[in-house]
Amino acid sequence: MITRPTLVINEDICRANIRGMAKKANFSRVIFRPHFKTHQSLQIADWFRDQGVDRITVSSAEMAIKFAKAGWNDITIAFPANIRETDTYNKLAEKLELNLLTDSIEATEALVSNLNTDTGIFIEIDTGYGRSGVHYANEEMIRKIVHIIDHAPKLSFKGFLTHSGNTYYATNTGQIEDIYNKTIAELRSLKDKYINTHPAIIISVGDTPSCSLIDDLSGANEIRPGNFVYYDLMQYYLGSCKLSDISVSVACPVTGIYPDRNEIVIYGGAVHLSKEFLEQDGRFFGLVVNYTDDGRSSPLPDTRLISISQEHGIIRTSPEFLKTVKHGDLLGILPVHSCLTANLLKDQMIIV
Amino acid sequence: MITRPTLVINEDICRANIRGMAKKANFSRVIFRPHFKTHQSLQIADWFRDQGVDRITVSSAEMAIKFAKAGWNDITIAFPANIRETDTYNKLAEKLELNLLTDSIEATEALVSNLNTDTGIFIEIDTGYGRSGVHYANEEMIRKIVHIIDHAPKLSFKGFLTHSGNTYYATNTGQIEDIYNKTIAELRSLKDKYINTHPAIIISVGDTPSCSLIDDLSGANEIRPGNFVYYDLMQYYLGSCKLSDISVSVACPVTGIYPDRNEIVIYGGAVHLSKEFLEQDGRFFGLVVNYTDDGRSSPLPDTRLISISQEHGIIRTSPEFLKTVKHGDLLGILPVHSCLTANLLKDQMIIV
Repeated sequence: MITRPTLVINEDICRANIRGMAKKANFSRVIFRPHFKTHQSLQIADWFRDQGVDRITVSSAEMAIKFAKAGWNDITIAFPANIRETDTYNKLAEKLELNLLTDSIEATEALVSNLNTDTGIFIEIDTGYGRSGVHYANEEMIRKIVHIIDHAPKLSFKGFLTHSGNTYYATNTGQIEDIYNKTIAELRSLKDKYINTHPAIIISVGDTPSCSLIDDLSGANEIRPGNFVYYDLMQYYLGSCKLSDISVSVACPVTGIYPDRNEIVIYGGAVHLSKEFLEQDGRFFGLVVNYTDDGRSSPLPDTRLISISQEHGIIRTSPEFLKTVKHGDLLGILPVHSCLTANLLKDQMIIV
Repeated sequence: MITRPTLVINEDICRANIRGMAKKANFSRVIFRPHFKTHQSLQIADWFRDQGVDRITVSSAEMAIKFAKAGWNDITIAFPANIRETDTYNKLAEKLELNLLTDSIEATEALVSNLNTDTGIFIEIDTGYGRSGVHYANEEMIRKIVHIIDHAPKLSFKGFLTHSGNTYYATNTGQIEDIYNKTIAELRSLKDKYINTHPAIIISVGDTPSCSLIDDLSGANEIRPGNFVYYDLMQYYLGSCKLSDISVSVACPVTGIYPDRNEIVIYGGAVHLSKEFLEQDGRFFGLVVNYTDDGRSSPLPDTRLISISQEHGIIRTSPEFLKTVKHGDLLGILPVHSCLTANLLKDQMIIV
């Protein structure tokens, strides 16, 4: 019995999401290197293996260690190389094919000095997100970094990698397509400059909105989406998925019913869902579903998770729905951002 | 060596916060039953024991189990009783003095049916926060709940409890004092109605802003603050603490330096800090300090954590400070909401 907030993973939906993206990668003839930061689960990793996946992306050295122990042996840590962790990188690279990211001369030189095992290096490129990466037009910096890598016996230049997180700010799907096309054009122009001297380099892209919305991804050589395994409300409002593609919900016990304010309090708060929210006619932290014999209902009308504190969530709903709810019922919350929710509930999940 | 985002707890400041609140409780002649949801740490729990604390508050049954195993034997679970967890409540109540909260007839009746071990019951009162609790003016409901408890052999009525979380919406300290005074007045009027028939009942209040700002808490019988052990930027901006009272920071490695946009990328994101933010001339997720030989600097001027994704944080700063930073440096982040940050980093902390 579920007694406390629990991530409920619908295996059929989740496997369909994995299968769909694997098929698209195959059709586009690109490497499918899914990001495992969303699920962080060895069991769900096996569902990827069932689709032929043997190369993965993670966002931290700890995650790389976890999946390495489970037999994954080709891992990109898609986070700027952290020069305090070079000992860990060396240990990982002894056991598996490891790729790291760099976007500066300083970090690259630190890798040259500290890595003593063969390691692949992607140059991270900023194509407009403005988080990390060398700006794509900074050709001098890119040339210098390539030069440093070329002269380091243990490092090999793998190509150009970006995360177009700016697709998350799009207000329509056309903008996501525009960002994708611009990203591919910029990365290809970089690749064209180096392909003769470095024939094995690739371009690697990754955000779930682009990978979900673009049918033919053959402009890239590798895709690294992560969120699509679960999807969430953020992706739904971006247009990346249908509500029925969301493969997770958080089952939360009802602990309070307040007819005078049309509110229900659930056991389910910021330490289970995260404080990520959406703004659509006001701020909300999730939509609410009922569990049914064969899965779950559509989101209940006029019903949203409007507030969360550490352990409490407040659902505002209609008088009609409120009347049907009892203490101890389980309500499902469709999360705003499944990566953060799954991270919080990684030790408290069930597969149905 | 710190290699990844790590909660740094300053023992001197933390112990001073504990000592100060214990002293105030002693002066006010109220029971000090601190909330352990903020730190969730057995070691910091011992620092409370050093101040004579032997009664505690937690926010979940799991936390009660954890502290019970460490010898804490008088615990209030300050969360509306979850009737799916009555088996756990029974196991806990066999070993220790357990108090639960109720705010409805339905939940109280479920406790009567399912609890088979002596358990204390507080009626949670809503004095204006609007989260959980019986509205203080709903005398009929309160009377009915007391009646049910009185007729249940295993339940004993402990009194009235509230969490005035509405103090967190205050825009000046005068408002916090007003909320506290109104809360105490309402709870005392309830207590007055039942004290003759139930001479042992108490009133229990808890929010950190009130407990920090009010010098004489003798209007209550018990206080349950939690956040004060660490404090954070939210408390600082509310006026509950000085910056120098904040006993935690998150040490984050620098992984990117971007002079063209005066930004630094750190290894430290939503899975370390939470997505809690403040709005003061724009949204921010933390202030930034340097570590020094004897602790840490004041927050760096014109420097804020302006954006976070899962693992990355973006600090916007001045050209002057940016010039001093190197890859691999550690920067400290003063968190917006230490409860959520400490929850995320409960397995990755150091005490200095």
